Amino acid sequence: MKELSSYVRTIPDFPIPGIMFRDITGILDSAEGFAFSIDELAKRAEKLQFDLVAGIESRGFIFAAPLALRFQKPFIPFRKKGKLPGKTIQQEFKLEYGSSILEVNENAVRPGQRVLIVDDLIATGGSAKAGQALVERLGGTVAGFLFVIELPSAKGRDALAPFPVESLISFEGD
Amino acid sequence: MKELSSYVRTIPDFPIPGIMFRDITGILDSAEGFAFSIDELAKRAEKLQFDLVAGIESRGFIFAAPLALRFQKPFIPFRKKGKLPGKTIQQEFKLEYGSSILEVNENAVRPGQRVLIVDDLIATGGSAKAGQALVERLGGTVAGFLFVIELPSAKGRDALAPFPVESLISFEGD
Repeated sequence: MKELSSYVRTIPDFPIPGIMFRDITGILDSAEGFAFSIDELAKRAEKLQFDLVAGIESRGFIFAAPLALRFQKPFIPFRKKGKLPGKTIQQEFKLEYGSSILEVNENAVRPGQRVLIVDDLIATGGSAKAGQALVERLGGTVAGFLFVIELPSAKGRDALAPFPVESLISFEGD
Repeated sequence: MKELSSYVRTIPDFPIPGIMFRDITGILDSAEGFAFSIDELAKRAEKLQFDLVAGIESRGFIFAAPLALRFQKPFIPFRKKGKLPGKTIQQEFKLEYGSSILEVNENAVRPGQRVLIVDDLIATGGSAKAGQALVERLGGTVAGFLFVIELPSAKGRDALAPFPVESLISFEGD
């Protein structure tokens, strides 16, 4: 099959001028590309010990949910503010463009549980770091982070140290 | 295992007063419940002929993505307005509370393709119907609709006739 990176479309100036948007819908558009991306993420996940798989809304859900099923673990949605009913805890974080709030059900993670956090892309690591804070505030531990795409120049990997960070594709120069 | 319906939490008055919110995070919280829900959705999907699996943002992604992988089909995200880069088409629809816009990449569906539309819940069927409109405007056909939860009193099934509509759990009296 083609290189996974060849399925990723680059859209300049989205959602705001100056951002080179890396679009994973090209991977999803291909049954082969999507299956390959999940297989490769699963290979990385096998090296980690975890009890739960968390996905970051909403593109992270697309990769996290199949991994939770593959490893027979519960799936935890980290959602934007106001989307989850019931009691939640919130964590604010900076984006490349603006800021946002991530929320999780307060009973989603029990003390001592190890959580694998999954998203489509890591740039500065702001949303992933917010996910880490949510896990730790509930008494859990981050087992590691998985991403399909990494933009190394934004140094998200450094922001998430010392936790394991795995990605399938890197785009330099962003 | 427990009845799937026993995993669903009901939260009164969310997101607005008068709505009994049926929360699927209780299913996701259980590795067994989540796997069972996907297995049961897959049994319904087996009876249908489809080329693509579309999920409605964002809870629909959690069920649609694993089904796309299970059947080795591409996954198409139907997203809220402004989230998809590139050229899209839009469809407005009414919610139980307010209105919204659903978008899809204009090349996501090719003429003649059959699309299975998946979401977590059907009430009035507004968002699912908007998904149908998007599919048909791109020259495709709806193969059927799958939902985890159905609220029959909101008559969404009627709104989606004559297409096949399958759901795993019904809550009467909403």
